Amino acid sequence: MGEVNNSVRAQVLVDALPHIQKYNNKIVVVKYGGNAMTNEVLKQAVMNDIVLLSLVGIKVVLVHGGGPEINDMLKRLNIESKFIGGLRYTDAETVEVVKMVLAGKVNKELVSLLGRSQGNALGLCGTDGGMLLAKRKEGANGEDLGFVGDIVKVNEKPILDALNCGYIPVIATVAIDKSGQTYNINADTAAARIAAQLGAENLILMTDIAGLLRDKNDPSTLIPFVNVSEVPFFKRKGIISGGMIPKIDCCVEAVRRGVKKTAIIDGRVPHSILIETLTNDGIGTQFR
Amino acid sequence: MGEVNNSVRAQVLVDALPHIQKYNNKIVVVKYGGNAMTNEVLKQAVMNDIVLLSLVGIKVVLVHGGGPEINDMLKRLNIESKFIGGLRYTDAETVEVVKMVLAGKVNKELVSLLGRSQGNALGLCGTDGGMLLAKRKEGANGEDLGFVGDIVKVNEKPILDALNCGYIPVIATVAIDKSGQTYNINADTAAARIAAQLGAENLILMTDIAGLLRDKNDPSTLIPFVNVSEVPFFKRKGIISGGMIPKIDCCVEAVRRGVKKTAIIDGRVPHSILIETLTNDGIGTQFR
Amino acid sequence: MGEVNNSVRAQVLVDALPHIQKYNNKIVVVKYGGNAMTNEVLKQAVMNDIVLLSLVGIKVVLVHGGGPEINDMLKRLNIESKFIGGLRYTDAETVEVVKMVLAGKVNKELVSLLGRSQGNALGLCGTDGGMLLAKRKEGANGEDLGFVGDIVKVNEKPILDALNCGYIPVIATVAIDKSGQTYNINADTAAARIAAQLGAENLILMTDIAGLLRDKNDPSTLIPFVNVSEVPFFKRKGIISGGMIPKIDCCVEAVRRGVKKTAIIDGRVPHSILIETLTNDGIGTQFR
Amino acid sequence: MGEVNNSVRAQVLVDALPHIQKYNNKIVVVKYGGNAMTNEVLKQAVMNDIVLLSLVGIKVVLVHGGGPEINDMLKRLNIESKFIGGLRYTDAETVEVVKMVLAGKVNKELVSLLGRSQGNALGLCGTDGGMLLAKRKEGANGEDLGFVGDIVKVNEKPILDALNCGYIPVIATVAIDKSGQTYNINADTAAARIAAQLGAENLILMTDIAGLLRDKNDPSTLIPFVNVSEVPFFKRKGIISGGMIPKIDCCVEAVRRGVKKTAIIDGRVPHSILIETLTNDGIGTQFR
Amino acid sequence: MGEVNNSVRAQVLVDALPHIQKYNNKIVVVKYGGNAMTNEVLKQAVMNDIVLLSLVGIKVVLVHGGGPEINDMLKRLNIESKFIGGLRYTDAETVEVVKMVLAGKVNKELVSLLGRSQGNALGLCGTDGGMLLAKRKEGANGEDLGFVGDIVKVNEKPILDALNCGYIPVIATVAIDKSGQTYNINADTAAARIAAQLGAENLILMTDIAGLLRDKNDPSTLIPFVNVSEVPFFKRKGIISGGMIPKIDCCVEAVRRGVKKTAIIDGRVPHSILIETLTNDGIGTQFR
Amino acid sequence: MGEVNNSVRAQVLVDALPHIQKYNNKIVVVKYGGNAMTNEVLKQAVMNDIVLLSLVGIKVVLVHGGGPEINDMLKRLNIESKFIGGLRYTDAETVEVVKMVLAGKVNKELVSLLGRSQGNALGLCGTDGGMLLAKRKEGANGEDLGFVGDIVKVNEKPILDALNCGYIPVIATVAIDKSGQTYNINADTAAARIAAQLGAENLILMTDIAGLLRDKNDPSTLIPFVNVSEVPFFKRKGIISGGMIPKIDCCVEAVRRGVKKTAIIDGRVPHSILIETLTNDGIGTQFR
Repeated sequence: MGEVNNSVRAQVLVDALPHIQKYNNKIVVVKYGGNAMTNEVLKQAVMNDIVLLSLVGIKVVLVHGGGPEINDMLKRLNIESKFIGGLRYTDAETVEVVKMVLAGKVNKELVSLLGRSQGNALGLCGTDGGMLLAKRKEGANGEDLGFVGDIVKVNEKPILDALNCGYIPVIATVAIDKSGQTYNINADTAAARIAAQLGAENLILMTDIAGLLRDKNDPSTLIPFVNVSEVPFFKRKGIISGGMIPKIDCCVEAVRRGVKKTAIIDGRVPHSILIETLTNDGIGTQFR
Repeated sequence: MGEVNNSVRAQVLVDALPHIQKYNNKIVVVKYGGNAMTNEVLKQAVMNDIVLLSLVGIKVVLVHGGGPEINDMLKRLNIESKFIGGLRYTDAETVEVVKMVLAGKVNKELVSLLGRSQGNALGLCGTDGGMLLAKRKEGANGEDLGFVGDIVKVNEKPILDALNCGYIPVIATVAIDKSGQTYNINADTAAARIAAQLGAENLILMTDIAGLLRDKNDPSTLIPFVNVSEVPFFKRKGIISGGMIPKIDCCVEAVRRGVKKTAIIDGRVPHSILIETLTNDGIGTQFR
Repeated sequence: MGEVNNSVRAQVLVDALPHIQKYNNKIVVVKYGGNAMTNEVLKQAVMNDIVLLSLVGIKVVLVHGGGPEINDMLKRLNIESKFIGGLRYTDAETVEVVKMVLAGKVNKELVSLLGRSQGNALGLCGTDGGMLLAKRKEGANGEDLGFVGDIVKVNEKPILDALNCGYIPVIATVAIDKSGQTYNINADTAAARIAAQLGAENLILMTDIAGLLRDKNDPSTLIPFVNVSEVPFFKRKGIISGGMIPKIDCCVEAVRRGVKKTAIIDGRVPHSILIETLTNDGIGTQFR
Repeated sequence: MGEVNNSVRAQVLVDALPHIQKYNNKIVVVKYGGNAMTNEVLKQAVMNDIVLLSLVGIKVVLVHGGGPEINDMLKRLNIESKFIGGLRYTDAETVEVVKMVLAGKVNKELVSLLGRSQGNALGLCGTDGGMLLAKRKEGANGEDLGFVGDIVKVNEKPILDALNCGYIPVIATVAIDKSGQTYNINADTAAARIAAQLGAENLILMTDIAGLLRDKNDPSTLIPFVNVSEVPFFKRKGIISGGMIPKIDCCVEAVRRGVKKTAIIDGRVPHSILIETLTNDGIGTQFR
Repeated sequence: MGEVNNSVRAQVLVDALPHIQKYNNKIVVVKYGGNAMTNEVLKQAVMNDIVLLSLVGIKVVLVHGGGPEINDMLKRLNIESKFIGGLRYTDAETVEVVKMVLAGKVNKELVSLLGRSQGNALGLCGTDGGMLLAKRKEGANGEDLGFVGDIVKVNEKPILDALNCGYIPVIATVAIDKSGQTYNINADTAAARIAAQLGAENLILMTDIAGLLRDKNDPSTLIPFVNVSEVPFFKRKGIISGGMIPKIDCCVEAVRRGVKKTAIIDGRVPHSILIETLTNDGIGTQFR
Repeated sequence: MGEVNNSVRAQVLVDALPHIQKYNNKIVVVKYGGNAMTNEVLKQAVMNDIVLLSLVGIKVVLVHGGGPEINDMLKRLNIESKFIGGLRYTDAETVEVVKMVLAGKVNKELVSLLGRSQGNALGLCGTDGGMLLAKRKEGANGEDLGFVGDIVKVNEKPILDALNCGYIPVIATVAIDKSGQTYNINADTAAARIAAQLGAENLILMTDIAGLLRDKNDPSTLIPFVNVSEVPFFKRKGIISGGMIPKIDCCVEAVRRGVKKTAIIDGRVPHSILIETLTNDGIGTQFR
């Protein structure tokens, strides 16, 4: 990059203008996860990108999961996962570890990294200010899955308070029920519900795939834009399948609840979040 | 209590009025720890008391440590503590566990319990909004103690933002340095520095002792009021000794930095915090 | 009370918490009158109770009449009451005395007593800020009753201004018509209309009776809760009769206009207002 | 006036412009008393003038005494004044009548009259919001004068609150001490202290004289401007004498405490207050 | 005027009170033009009147054209007007001169004159803050008239911002389309649209005629009040004819869009604007 | 630029982050003039850059002169410049043309162009809100230069009002004296004084030179940083000479009055203003 001259630099900035205008003072929810979260270099870069977005006038809300770190901790603590009907059961001990790792380790590390990029962040979880209210989720056949929760209600006040006081809210997706019991919540789903409750302009799901591909093995078959009404068709055709199904269901749900657009982007590409928000091309697949 | 008649109830409330007036709209920092934190019944009762104080117009800031839960977790993770010159050394792995347990487990559990009493709480740690800035603390003889920190600066903005938005701030005492490295901070010291920075009216340290006793073995020898100028005398006399020394040094430090009064109270006594703030007698030992 | 120990004190305060939460930041209109207003000890106690309620976050509005003091002054001034068809006629001279005693004597004395309990009160009458607009009331058979008025409109702005600036509004129930003519207004009725206009949570009428009794002579027959739909039945049964009729009609009117609940309580019982608002039992009879 | 043509009308308005500009958003305290207060036509005219001044952007504060009405009431109540060393003694009964008449009759009548001119007024006395704090005043030779008070402190908050909420504050000059005891206060003195505490631009004392005359019997000898440093000279010359002394001492006191100018004007002249504030000539005598 | 005594002055001010009350805090749009704009003495007088109106609490918005000055400049620059079908064609060069003269000369001179009367004015044109959005206007028979525009949308924000920050907005009636092209806009029409968008209380059109006359040659036949429903009748009768038609159509349009009243007044009469707003008689013809 | 890939784009944006952080919420005054103002493509580009800067959180204030357009208009109007002692004399007619062209043509065109880039701009000149107060400037030997002015006082309120209401203030540098007389003001000097009064972070003077060169004919001898204390030395050496002297004196003046830094940049280089503010290299010469 040393060779990028100032003329090119200026032009790139100018090209970003209409995008900055589009998102000015709007809320963008970023669901952060996957590879971009485990690679330390990518992680600091993403936090830097988030700070940049917040400085150009975008109200960024960062929602994160914590996959591998939770598994590591469960393993270190010799907590074995039980499976009921093929589904992982989250017992009381496990959900406590989940909360501890998400809200105490992953969340606070992200807050630190944002601070290192001169960002002013505030770590929150669903317990804070009663933000995420959950109820017990049942398995597809009514199985008891333990303390896995469905979101009943998002209380947006703590998030808006944080934004209005000038912080970047960083949200760990654990929730509580009325009795104060903690529940583990799927982070994609939580991000979709939060984005909807906030009336977000954009929900960006960072993943480890390039986007929706007509042929999974051929990145050149990327489908850049999908209307949510086309999703059932893509499912029937098998183009949306496997692990993509719940992710894209989140996108559909968010759009249906009023989010202007959602995008599934490749977190492995450096600065993919900037490319998605501040360039003409975008990256990955957008759902409207 | 069933037999307490309404006339007595009314009189008790009336008797609380001058105390409520004294603290109205003032900040009271409560350092919560010890037995009151491990006994589940006491714990919910303390949280209930905190909600009550906040509703009668006191701006309560709750600062907590996490002693036993940290040790449990370190033990479960087979992390052994190294000792250097008799002092516990906090290595990088340990400080991460400390942060995780304090900010992810103890902190969020307190937020939940406050919520269960209809309190509106927000969990924070020193990382959030760059609240607690630390530097490496040296041992008495210059030993390296690892990631044990001294507070360099308290940024009160996140605490005041939380108070102004109507939340009870709950603060886990981990701090960061400029590079984002986490440090473990003594919770009493942190509470004293936070109280001073906020210009608090009162700093209440909840402990497992009745207060300062002339004769350790005789609770009837409680010294109810101490002027901070008397502390050296009490130290020379051996009345302040052992584990009391650092606690009382925190009290002196807080008073010197402008906190109106500090109190060491017995967290084992139910509602000791209400007795301290809303009755004529007070409880434990007050330092001014 | 000297023997009430701190443990009991703390428990009483804790028991008050849910009530404090229920009324937090809500408006409670207290109609103050009867014995509690003529007994000097009770009077200061009631003012102290009002200050306490305002400090625990309740927006108290105090509405008062002035019965005996008006009669004393009329007598001292040798103004005789005329009666027309059994109803007292309020002539121009009388209504001026009523205004003077209510707004200049009773009202300002209450403001002083609230101040003596460290309360910050502001005395108002219906003239101030055009708060209470009245028209001439006719007798049941169309008799001219002189300057007795019916409230046409309550302008809540002066009351809300006082509350928002941190004062306890104390309201003398004289009103004016468009020409500036003063009218005497029944204080219970005025309190009901004010409570309705303010969307109050509770309207408390302090009286000299224990509440609604099935048998007037047996206090143990107190009816603690009445649904306003039951009132006609109680009237037919003669349980609501005599002087209770207009008072309870005020309660019904207030509930119909949106006040959540109203209570007729016994002002002769010390701190009855605290028992009504901050204990489980309540006191007297509640109408919803 | 029917013959005043529109051209003249327009010119008069234009001539008022620089005066309106001078007082724009400034506080003017008007001490209202004397003949202008007993003549009903003048009274409504003065209130109308006050409303006009408030509408052209002047923050008018109306301070009033109540001389004749107090005496009438005392007489009707057969309360005889005692005199001690030639000074009237105000006993407890008398001060209550004073308060009642001032705050309940005169004050509220002025509020009504302002309302009739579409003004939005709020009646206050020194008790409201703890506005006027007094202590017992001694006679010149240390005699006990009963409940006659000297102002110890003016708490301007209730007055500013009223102004900021859009009301014309109307102030009856009774005060209280810390115990809540009422005191009678000289209205000129109170107006001067209130003007000083508010940093008023002008203090206008309405009287029954044309102003300061070199020859009391010759209105053509009016002295239009006096520098407060000249007052001792005028006193020695006997030009300031008798009842003028305390009035002019109030003017001097007000100017010394920072009021820009004070004026003694003739309340018997219709609209004298408008002539003083909105014309080039002024009226009466100004002290600077 | 030297002989107007203070008593008359006071009475005139008093007579203005109900008018000041009526317009208090309301918006009045003044379309300034004609003779009052070319006579230097009248011009400063009008500006002085505007400052007076703004000081007595009226939110005045000054809208101006620039007739003769534009023609002077076009002549000096040897720009000849083309006529198409009898209508003047505004070419690109002409519209630039119009904008320059209106926004740079007339507008700024008015701002200066208001400042000379101690008014605080802000000069705006339709370009500022995108205030006036126009599209190309066609001639009656579809002729191209060049850059003459019809207002498509009035964005009131810059005007309200100016008013709220304490300025008198002075508006030059040039507009732009989305591409940034300037258009010349009829000032009467612009004033009507602006008044409607602001919900003005009154729209005053200053002209060179006495108002609507039944007989053009007889000023004594002035019609002081016209209901807009009568306009078609007056047109049929020929009472509204010639140059009056577009002016009165503006009045009708403004009233139809919600302006409370509009007045066509004679700008040649000194202080006609004060007579219209602050006296009982009014001047000229009012349309409601 | 078509070939700039997204990876480069993202990196450029990331590289801009520290600069965006540095200027976040700070005021930057841009003096716009020279070639960048006459070349239409450059002009729109500069306006686009200004909009971009304002969107990334910089409070940009645009100050402009109008050189060639003024001369064109003077020429078209056959106004010949008189010279007195070698200095151009600005007579009354000329200063009116200057004002008209600057405030009505150049200023409004810039506002339009900013609007075309979706910027929200407000055109102001020194007359608006009494922003620039001037007095007559004398020539070096006391010659009368006509209506050429020195700035006596900058009233920042209209500029801050515009910024706070969300507009980009665009300022034409004509000023007035107390009598309302217009003066022509050197735009560089005006920009320096405005920047100083606003406490700007940066004052950027756009010129037609590359910056301060050691050898005027060799762009490679650009001096990137100058401490204002070095300026006398550079003057003595002849490195600062001719037309550069007044420009650099402005920079020195601005720095001495508290502006953090000033930069002389080459307006002919596309996006030079972005390069100066948002890249590491900067452009031209900086004075601190």
